[in-house]
Formats: sequence, structure tokens, C-alpha cells
Amino acid sequence: MRDSLSFEILETKERVIENNDAVAEKVRKLLSEKNVFFINLMSSPGSGKTTTLLRTIDELGKKFRIGVMEADVDSSVDAESVAAKGAKVIQLHTGGSCHMDADMTLRGIEKMGVDDVDILFLENVGNLVCPAEFDVGADKRVVILSVPEGDDKPLKYPLMFTVSDLCLINKIDTMKVFDFDIEKFKQNVKALNDNEKIIPISALTSEGFSDWIKWLDNAAESKIK
Amino acid sequence: MRDSLSFEILETKERVIENNDAVAEKVRKLLSEKNVFFINLMSSPGSGKTTTLLRTIDELGKKFRIGVMEADVDSSVDAESVAAKGAKVIQLHTGGSCHMDADMTLRGIEKMGVDDVDILFLENVGNLVCPAEFDVGADKRVVILSVPEGDDKPLKYPLMFTVSDLCLINKIDTMKVFDFDIEKFKQNVKALNDNEKIIPISALTSEGFSDWIKWLDNAAESKIK
Repeated sequence: MRDSLSFEILETKERVIENNDAVAEKVRKLLSEKNVFFINLMSSPGSGKTTTLLRTIDELGKKFRIGVMEADVDSSVDAESVAAKGAKVIQLHTGGSCHMDADMTLRGIEKMGVDDVDILFLENVGNLVCPAEFDVGADKRVVILSVPEGDDKPLKYPLMFTVSDLCLINKIDTMKVFDFDIEKFKQNVKALNDNEKIIPISALTSEGFSDWIKWLDNAAESKIK
Repeated sequence: MRDSLSFEILETKERVIENNDAVAEKVRKLLSEKNVFFINLMSSPGSGKTTTLLRTIDELGKKFRIGVMEADVDSSVDAESVAAKGAKVIQLHTGGSCHMDADMTLRGIEKMGVDDVDILFLENVGNLVCPAEFDVGADKRVVILSVPEGDDKPLKYPLMFTVSDLCLINKIDTMKVFDFDIEKFKQNVKALNDNEKIIPISALTSEGFSDWIKWLDNAAESKIK
């Protein structure tokens, strides 16, 4: 764990890139050489990406050195919360862009430095559409869908659920307040992507959280030598 | 009210447009000539745009002829709900685009036809970033922010709260379940846009809904001759 609460802010305005996938491969190669397991974490605004990250740092921060790249159009409130946990963090400002691409990600990684990182998270811009279109070189893509958003979202935002490896259903502690049919949601996801793993959690109460930690621990172990 | 539950689906893939604002003015001129009051309704996925529209049709559907353009990347579930209410509706599929621009909007209006419409809603793609960047020719821009998303969202997605005329805080019936500080939220909005009106509602229980209906009724009356 780090002592300092400080972090840098990098302006990563999107540039016109001919071949995003080639840059993503460059990211993948770099992080493999450095033994870093990289997760691209995506969701709508307010689904609980930061709260999930904070609890994850609590649970796995002693076993793995965790680094976080916080991508936002503006503000640094999330980076402040992560820094307060003692994890390594950089705030990326996307200059109006609604997503991160591989080039922006690579610049973030180079600025932050990952020699002292085992698990690297990119907390993408809150958006269920565009981030799904860009391979940023992650080992795994994780999407969070929170109960208040509704069980029909895979129908409206199919690409996100097609390209992701794991879906965390967050805020399950509010299931009694919302009309969310978890079986219908699972069917909607499976119709798009039969390989997607689904784990219901509450980042607030920790219900189901150990299943996510187990998945992450296994996935990271299998990459990090 | 219309008898038929049928609606058309238009593929409105984004085209490269030199001057979005010029097309937006064209939309504005066309709708003024036809005496149509036009609202661009925006929010994150699952904030309650459709539920708000359905209740609005219930409340004002006898006084005004309401038309709805449902913009989604995919699916027609929202258009089906609106059609079932007897309102005129068209489903716009954006072909992967995360927002509507003025050109896509104009094509939607021309396909739908607005000679029998007094109030036209565009239910934009669920996204708190990109739709804010495009003037689609609306008379008013309305953003919905739901309580589960959190009171810090204006800090992270400032443009949406800068360009909109009215913010509906939806799902206030869940205020007891979430840590949402309504005064802090109002301060965050006012810091960006001192002219923005804020109305707390629950589209589910109807709490506060009459204030929104009153605002809409007055705004529509002031345009429609």
C-alpha cells in the first residue's frame, strides 16, 4: 500500500488513430512483458464502478498491488477516493470524449507507470454504448449493470454484453425496491453472449462480493507469473 | 388518441454532416411552421425516460396530440410501450451511434410526419455524454437524473447540465434507499447552469409529477398558437 494520497492528472484528448486494434495489441504486449493483469471496467454513470473498485482494493490490496486509471470527461472525485485507499491511481481527462480508445489508454499507462502494479483497472467513462466499441488491450472486459437500470438493458445496448467477459449485477440490495427480473436479465445476456459470466453483487453491503473476488483472483493468478 | 398499435422503424445511421447547427435550425424552422413544440429528452440508460413519457402521455394526451421518436441503438421495446398508450411513435435505430444529431432527427421527423402532432418528444439514446453535444433543433432540452445514479453526476458529466433547460430528478421514491443529497445535487447543477430548473419527481408513484406537467403545459402553450 502507498502512503501518498497524491495522483497525477493527464489530459488524454482523443487523437485520430488509423488502427485502434494494433495499438491495443501493443498495450497487451507491454503489459504481458510487465506481468500486469489488465481489466477494462465499464458501465452506465452511477452503476457503482468506483464503489466496486474501492471494496476490491480492500479485499485484494494486500495480495496484489492494484493500480487504477480513472477516466472521466471531467472532475477528479473518483481518483481522490481511490488514492485515499492507498492504491496507485492516475486521473485521465478525456477532453469531452465519451470513451477510452487504445491510444489514450497507452498514454495513460506510460504516464502512470506500471512497474509496481500487478492488477491494473481502467475505470472507463460512464457510458453503455461507445466504450464497448474500443479494444483497449485489456485481458478481460467487465461490465457492471445495476438493478435500478432495469433488466431490459441488454436488448438496448447489445454490443456491451456481446464483447464483455463478465457482468456484475450491482446494487442487488435494492432488488426489493425495483422491478428487476434476474432470470429475464440472464436470458437477455445469454441470448447475446453465451460465454458471459454473471455475478450478482452489492458493493455496498458486500453480498455476493466474494464470488467476484474469487473470479478476479483466479483470473489474475493465471496471468501473473 | 390513435387506435393502432403499429409503428414504423427507421434506420437512421449517422452521416458525416458539415454543419449540425445549420440542420438544427432547419428542424426548428420546420417545427415552428407546423406549430409543434419539440423536446429533446436525455439521460443515462435506465433513468426512467420511457416511464416518464408514458405517464406524461396519460396526463396530457387528451389536451395535446403527443408524438414520440424513440432513438435506440437496437430493439423496439420502448416504441411498443408508447404505441400501447395510443400516442404516435416511430422507432429510430441509430446503427451503433450513441447519440442523435440534427440530420438523423430531421430524417425521423420527415418519416414520422408531424402534421397531427402538438408536442414532439425525442427520447434520445441513453447516454449522459454525447447527446449533450448535438443541437437537434429542440425548443427545450430536458435531462433526467435518477436518484440511484448519485448526486455527483453534474461534476463528471458537466456539459449535459450546462446545455439543458430542465432537470428532472427521477425515482425520488427510492431516496430512503440511496445516499443522495438533493441540496448538494442542486448546488452542483447551479454551479454549471444557474438557469436550469430542477423538478424532483417519481414517474412510478407520481410524486412531484404535477410540477413537471405544469412546466410542460406552460412551455407548450407558449409556443403552440
